[in-house]
Amino acid sequence: MESRGRFLAFRLMPGTDLIEGLQAVRAEAGARAMAIVTCVGSLTRCRLRHADRDAGTAYDGRFEIVSLVGTVDPQGQHLHLSLADGDGRVRGGHLLPGSAIHTTAEVVAVSLEDVAFAREGCAVSGYRELVVRGVTSR
Amino acid sequence: MESRGRFLAFRLMPGTDLIEGLQAVRAEAGARAMAIVTCVGSLTRCRLRHADRDAGTAYDGRFEIVSLVGTVDPQGQHLHLSLADGDGRVRGGHLLPGSAIHTTAEVVAVSLEDVAFAREGCAVSGYRELVVRGVTSR
Amino acid sequence: MESRGRFLAFRLMPGTDLIEGLQAVRAEAGARAMAIVTCVGSLTRCRLRHADRDAGTAYDGRFEIVSLVGTVDPQGQHLHLSLADGDGRVRGGHLLPGSAIHTTAEVVAVSLEDVAFAREGCAVSGYRELVVRGVTSR
Repeated sequence: MESRGRFLAFRLMPGTDLIEGLQAVRAEAGARAMAIVTCVGSLTRCRLRHADRDAGTAYDGRFEIVSLVGTVDPQGQHLHLSLADGDGRVRGGHLLPGSAIHTTAEVVAVSLEDVAFAREGCAVSGYRELVVRGVTSR
Repeated sequence: MESRGRFLAFRLMPGTDLIEGLQAVRAEAGARAMAIVTCVGSLTRCRLRHADRDAGTAYDGRFEIVSLVGTVDPQGQHLHLSLADGDGRVRGGHLLPGSAIHTTAEVVAVSLEDVAFAREGCAVSGYRELVVRGVTSR
Repeated sequence: MESRGRFLAFRLMPGTDLIEGLQAVRAEAGARAMAIVTCVGSLTRCRLRHADRDAGTAYDGRFEIVSLVGTVDPQGQHLHLSLADGDGRVRGGHLLPGSAIHTTAEVVAVSLEDVAFAREGCAVSGYRELVVRGVTSR
């Protein structure tokens, strides 16, 4: 679906949980459909659920965020992240609650003004999946 | 070149070839210059051409998409992707036709309204490369 | 902070230093707050500072750019990059001056019109960090 967007640019502080920080900004902006444009920063702790796994894997140390992709809405979020360690090795997966920002996370996101995101059961995948609906723009 | 943009937010379904899915959305929107803003999802199959290789490498299994970057236009696309496996290991390269979405691919792209993308031979690189031209906006 | 954005779409040529190329486009556009939306391309040389390291690590060879994230402003930039080699292995970290584009770098960035980025000392992290301020839009 097509939509206009307004950008949100912000820094998250050390110790912040990345998901909580993003959801707090989304809520304050009243965004019904937010997407990550770019995120640069570092983590001391990260919990990722790897492909086809039931449980999360915790990473503790010093990591650079080298990618953060996905969507954030009032019902939840779907975010994948990759992090690089002190030797440049990269690990990635589905971001779970329980991360902690090290020095900073600089984020530019876009709030889509003409749509709303929801999550609904999908008979094809068997999971709750993103649904994009048009809304009356404000 | 400068341009206004309108966003396209959509979900691609299981089994879809990622390139075909992106091109179908682009064509339906009439976009002459589209760029990936964010993509979060999973793949059961992916073909990547790695740096400086002639042939593609096929990945079969369960993978999380941890980055998708690039441009899509009526003449083609230039997309790089990185995927993470069940141990969080990340592989990446140039996305080729032949991928298959596992559960979902949530995509936000931007259609640039005031430019058109084309691919033309470049004497410096020796390859067909992106050209960005201004167009009369609609 | 909320902001409108205008997009910048461009190709950087072989041999260009990625930071210098981005800063040149930013300066020509008069952008006070620029963020990377997408970047697809290749490098023959890259210098990354890995997490929690003081010195940079040089990579020479042929690499695909599989992610580039971050912010660019008149005072500097904060960019993280991940690159994939001929076997698809991915390395990532903080991008330093001294990279060289191989065949191309196709970039779509956004210039945020209603904010300006600056870098100021932060008592919490101990580093110079991004500050986002509202400006009178042009």
